[in-house]
Formats: sequence, structure tokens, C-alpha cells
Amino acid sequence: MTTISKRCSEMQASPIRKLVPYANAAKARGTGVYHLNIGQPDIPTPPGYWSALKDSLPDVLAYGPSQGLLVLREAIATYYSRAGISIDTDEIIITTGGSEAVFFAFMATCDHGDEVICFEPFYTNYNGFASMAGIKLVPVTCTCENGFHLPEKAEIELKITERTRAILICSPNNPTGAVLSAEELGTLSEIISKHDLYLLSDEVYRDFVFDGGSHVSTLELPGIEDRVIVMDSISKRFSSCGARLGNMISRNKDIMSAALKLGQARLCPPTLAQYGAAWIYHHLRDDYYADIMATYQSRRDLLIEEFSGMEGIFFLKPEGAFYATMRLPVKDAERFASWMLTDFEFEGETTMVAPAAGFYATPGLGLDQIRIAYVLSEDKMRKALKILKEGLKVYRD
Amino acid sequence: MTTISKRCSEMQASPIRKLVPYANAAKARGTGVYHLNIGQPDIPTPPGYWSALKDSLPDVLAYGPSQGLLVLREAIATYYSRAGISIDTDEIIITTGGSEAVFFAFMATCDHGDEVICFEPFYTNYNGFASMAGIKLVPVTCTCENGFHLPEKAEIELKITERTRAILICSPNNPTGAVLSAEELGTLSEIISKHDLYLLSDEVYRDFVFDGGSHVSTLELPGIEDRVIVMDSISKRFSSCGARLGNMISRNKDIMSAALKLGQARLCPPTLAQYGAAWIYHHLRDDYYADIMATYQSRRDLLIEEFSGMEGIFFLKPEGAFYATMRLPVKDAERFASWMLTDFEFEGETTMVAPAAGFYATPGLGLDQIRIAYVLSEDKMRKALKILKEGLKVYRD
Repeated sequence: MTTISKRCSEMQASPIRKLVPYANAAKARGTGVYHLNIGQPDIPTPPGYWSALKDSLPDVLAYGPSQGLLVLREAIATYYSRAGISIDTDEIIITTGGSEAVFFAFMATCDHGDEVICFEPFYTNYNGFASMAGIKLVPVTCTCENGFHLPEKAEIELKITERTRAILICSPNNPTGAVLSAEELGTLSEIISKHDLYLLSDEVYRDFVFDGGSHVSTLELPGIEDRVIVMDSISKRFSSCGARLGNMISRNKDIMSAALKLGQARLCPPTLAQYGAAWIYHHLRDDYYADIMATYQSRRDLLIEEFSGMEGIFFLKPEGAFYATMRLPVKDAERFASWMLTDFEFEGETTMVAPAAGFYATPGLGLDQIRIAYVLSEDKMRKALKILKEGLKVYRD
Repeated sequence: MTTISKRCSEMQASPIRKLVPYANAAKARGTGVYHLNIGQPDIPTPPGYWSALKDSLPDVLAYGPSQGLLVLREAIATYYSRAGISIDTDEIIITTGGSEAVFFAFMATCDHGDEVICFEPFYTNYNGFASMAGIKLVPVTCTCENGFHLPEKAEIELKITERTRAILICSPNNPTGAVLSAEELGTLSEIISKHDLYLLSDEVYRDFVFDGGSHVSTLELPGIEDRVIVMDSISKRFSSCGARLGNMISRNKDIMSAALKLGQARLCPPTLAQYGAAWIYHHLRDDYYADIMATYQSRRDLLIEEFSGMEGIFFLKPEGAFYATMRLPVKDAERFASWMLTDFEFEGETTMVAPAAGFYATPGLGLDQIRIAYVLSEDKMRKALKILKEGLKVYRD
């Protein structure tokens, strides 16, 4: 019998979702499961999203433009202009989730076999899109001790080959919560220019920067305007993961026309959701963003409070997004995470986390680390973390 | 300055959409444009879709399962069981449009550089997904004189190489309206088994078979159950193109687990629309499908009535879907189609069609052909076709 493709059989299963069957089995046994494994915010989708949707129901749910509805692209341009960043509607293509923006960015910049440098640990789904696009992700390792900030410039440049086409960053970072400094972005700009590369920038969490810091977009970096591709999404910002709407932004016209060809092949992003998204981009203002940011910051603080001083646990304070990657006093964090679902409960409940090894490309790294998404209310977070600590007390490698 | 990828710069622009700027310019001049260029049905989306949507608004628009909501997969299984086809919910993955089903099918069966045999003219967007997946579409030519049915078995087998992984069919066909007979499907089954291939079957138009005929699904073919992958969509059946929901069906467990890995990378298809889709799959019955089919059949009949006996126009009666590919008395149908938008109007209106050359992979074929999508009401169809005939009278190559 004919086999499936090699590229699919070699594709990594999602480390965020691979333990789901164990979680389902736990629930079937009657054990409650706190999900700290997936970046699914609990914050309500803004009600205006739903009213805008209901006000836009057409007779015929027709295809929209391949680049996305103008009303949404205008709303996004307005959102950026409020942040002092000038973007034209032609420099935006609406994508089916931030996911598609990543895939389009890989496809537009790379041919089969080309390389993209990224910083591990990194958002594991980049691997899937790299497989689909037939490109190689070349990891530069960031360390827990360094708060997952970038290593020295020379260490990055060491990975550049004649097949390198781009450097991929994510700031604020999933899975670490690190926020790149202006200095780090400056170093990256120099490398990008010097080696004739693209800078692919995942800025999905740009509104979640803590402790009074603010986000510097790669769209603001001078001298590399034509080399920057931003990938964004409404999923986290507006708690609308299921809408499947994101966008790709670039001032490079060739990149945008390549993205449009890719966009035409899949016809269009979901039509109706775009009206809801346009509404929230237009109408939500500073107070909304400040509230959300404060909510995540206090959850981050709770995480630090609960885990500070715990023997064998190590992580530096996350600066943004809603993730932390931490070292645990275990040899194999995947085994521990599975065990929490299959063999442990505390007062009838358990906690699910994502083993971090899947966020590394270098084999053997991150085996003792997990990623936590702090996307639950403080009450639930407190319980989930308590359970995790109890589990750590009992667990033996 | 660094360039874009070769694969994107070589990608074909959509022949269905490439003349859109001319159409927009015509509209800006005040000229009405009848769109026979795109398969965008004018039939209202079933109202139950909207009420199901409104009844399902959650507080948090969350990610759904990567394989799609169970309620929708159950509804699709029920739809098939009514047609006498038994499909398990695990044999269905919900995709973001039929588009993604095509891409997943290519990715799951083929590695980079592998070949898929298809029959030209074919749905032009297959080219886009082939570019994305890095595979080669190898065309077998079907002719207008033969009603775009399959050529002899030997002619198909001649194209099989050691890189061939699958044969791709679409029946009822976009862009020709041909419906493969049970005999043709039998021949394909033999080839598939003999040469150890997959059969990728686009059955988006399965409910639109005219003149009392009925559709034979490749899911019903004996002996190749493990080799069949069906790609489907709600876009045309339920006039819901903008929902971006389709599905991929296979009884091959390895194929389904490959599709699920691809699905996990992009997280999930649009959540909310799946409730609407589940409703219509569950609730619409024979009378709905019979009505829709009759509507398209009478438009098909109108097309034949209007064009029969026109000198230089040739096409056989389309048997299904809502397309016809026809030869015109022009040398370059793309030039004619552009001219209709830029230089012609009749009583303040003009008609837009899709040049057919883009539906062929073999250079030089189909230059004198167009594709018409009969997706307008009879009144509008009559006017649109009248304008097309008037244009043909005036146009000189």
C-alpha cells in the first residue's frame, strides 16, 4: 500500500496539543483539568464584536476580496496610526489567523530548502509552517538564565549561510514572555542589512508589555523598511482565537504582491468575522488595552509570587505576552506533564502544562522545562499552581 | 535588495480574478458589470445558517478542535449516510474552505517534487496549492469535442512516472460541467490500484448533477477505499463561500493523522461558522437540494438556448456544477474578455467572463476558450449573455 508523504510523517505533533487525549481521559474519570497548556484567553470577546457581526449578516455569505475587506484594513491602519506608525491599507493583507501570515511570510521570502534563523525556544507551530513551506528553521539558543533574551551578535551571525533568507522573531515572546529591547532590535537591523535578509516579526502580543514598558514595532526600525514583514492576529489581543483572523504587513511591494497571489489561491479569509474585527479595531481604545494588560500583568505577578523560592524552579520575570518558560526539578518534563494528567490529582483536580522540549529545535534542549500560559482568572490560576506544586512534591522521575 | 522567492514570482495570477481591476474601472465609469467570471452563487445562504450562528454566540470566541467541531463532523456523516455512504466522524477533518482540503491532500500524499496527474482544463487554484506544496501537476488534456470527458486509459497511464503519487479529479467539473460516468471512475480505479496511487477527488459540486443523473462518489468505489481522499466545501452547496469551511474525507488512517498534524499547525478552522454549517447539513433535506439543482439546470438550459446556433461558438451540454467552458470565435479570449471590460458596453452594461487558458497547464491550449459560471438569476443571465453576443459581433482580433 502506498505510504503518506515523508514530510508529513516526519512532522512534529503539536507539543501544546499532544497530551490532549490524556486530559480528556482525566476529565472522563471526573478529574477537573486546569489548562495552562494553551494560549486560549479566558477574557470575554468584546461584546461589540458580536453586535457588529449581527449587524452585518448578508443575504448571501459571499467571497470577500483576497486581501481582506477594506473596512478591516482601514481599521488596522487606524490602530497603527494611534501608535504613531503609518501603514497604508495596501501594505496589509488579512490572513486566516496569524497562522496563515506566518506561512505566507515563509512562502514569499523563501524557496524550498532555504533557511530562516529563529531563536529557541520558539512558538512550536512555526515548525508546522516550515514543514509546509519546505524550509529549514535554524535555531539560535536563548537561555533561561538570560531571561531568553538574544545572545551576542556574533553568535547569531555564525548561523548565517548562503541559504539564509530571513530572521524570525517574536516579541513579546511566546513561549518565554521576553520583550526585545530597542538595542536588541538595533542589532538585528544591522544583521538584516549587512547580510541582505528579511526580518519576519511576530507581533501578536504587542499590546501586552508589562511594568510600564512599551512595544517597539519592527515597523518603526529605520533603514530596513523594505525588509520587515509583520505577522499579527486578533486572537489574543481581542480574545477571538476562533475567528481565525490575522494579518501580514509589509512596506515591500513585491512581498505584498507575492502574498496577494498566495491569498488569491485560497480565495479569501472568513468574510463575516472581518466586520466584527473591524468594529473592535475601530472602537476599542486605550482603556481596553490598559485593562487587558493589567489583567495579564497581575497574573504574571501571581505566578512569580506562587513559585518564588520553590526549590528547583527557575525563571526570570516575564516582560510581556502571557507565557512563562520555566525549569522544573524534573528530568523529563513531558513525562511529568503526562503524569499530572494520568496519575495525579489534588482535591479532584489537576493541571495541564506544555512540555517545553517541543519549543526547541535542538534535540536535548528544554527537557526539564515547561511553558505555562497564564490565561485563567486569578482564583483558578492560584488553584492550578497549587496543584502543580503539590504534583512536584509527589512526583519522582 | 533581497528578492522575493522564486516560487512566488513564478506563481500564476488567478485567471478568475486577474481582470478584476478592469471590472472595477468599468464600474467606476458607471458601466454595470455582470459577473459570469467567478463561481459566486447568487442564491441566498439558508436562513437557518444565520439563526444557528446567532444561537451559538459564546462569551469567548475560542479555538475549536483542530479536526473541527464534532457536531459538524456528525452532521456531515449524516449527510453522507442519507446518500447511502457510511463515513465515520474520525474520517472527516473540517478545513478552512475546500481550498485547505486540496492543500492538505497534496501535502499528505506528496513530497516536494512529486507529481499529481490532473485533467485539463482544471480548477485553476489547484496551481496555487501545487506551488505551495512544491509539487508538479501533470496534465492530461480533455477536449471540448469530447465534452471534456476523460481520454483513453492508455493516454492517462502514459503520464505516470516514478514520481506520480496521485490522480486528481473534479466531478461535476469546474470549469467544464462534465460529470464522470461510473465507467470512467472504474477505469480510474484500475489505474489507481495498478500503479499504487491515491485518488484525490474534488466533489464540491456533487449535488448539482442535471437531467436526472446522480452522482457517484469516489467514496463508493470498491477496492480502493484506502486510496481515496475526498475534498469538499459548503461554499457552493449552501451558498456560503465566505464562511471558509470545507472538509477532507478519507478512510486511510495514516492520511487522516497526517491531515490532523497539518491541521494542528494552523490550530483550527473558523469556530462560529461551524455551528451554522452543522445546522444546514442536519436540517436541509431533499427539497432544498432538488430546488437548487433545478435552478442551475434551468440556467444551464438558458445558456444553451441563447448560444445554440451561434457561429463559432462550441460546447457540449454541461452535465453538472454551474460552469461551461466554451470555444469562442476569437483568437485570444483573454484579450476579448479584457476588451469587454475596457472598450465595450451595451446599454450601459457589460459582461465579465474568465479566459480559459489559465485553466490549462499546457501552454497554448484554451486560448480561444472562456469559462462561464451561470450563477446569476435568469433575467440577469439573459442580459449578460445578450451583451456577450453583442460584444462578439463587434469585437475584432
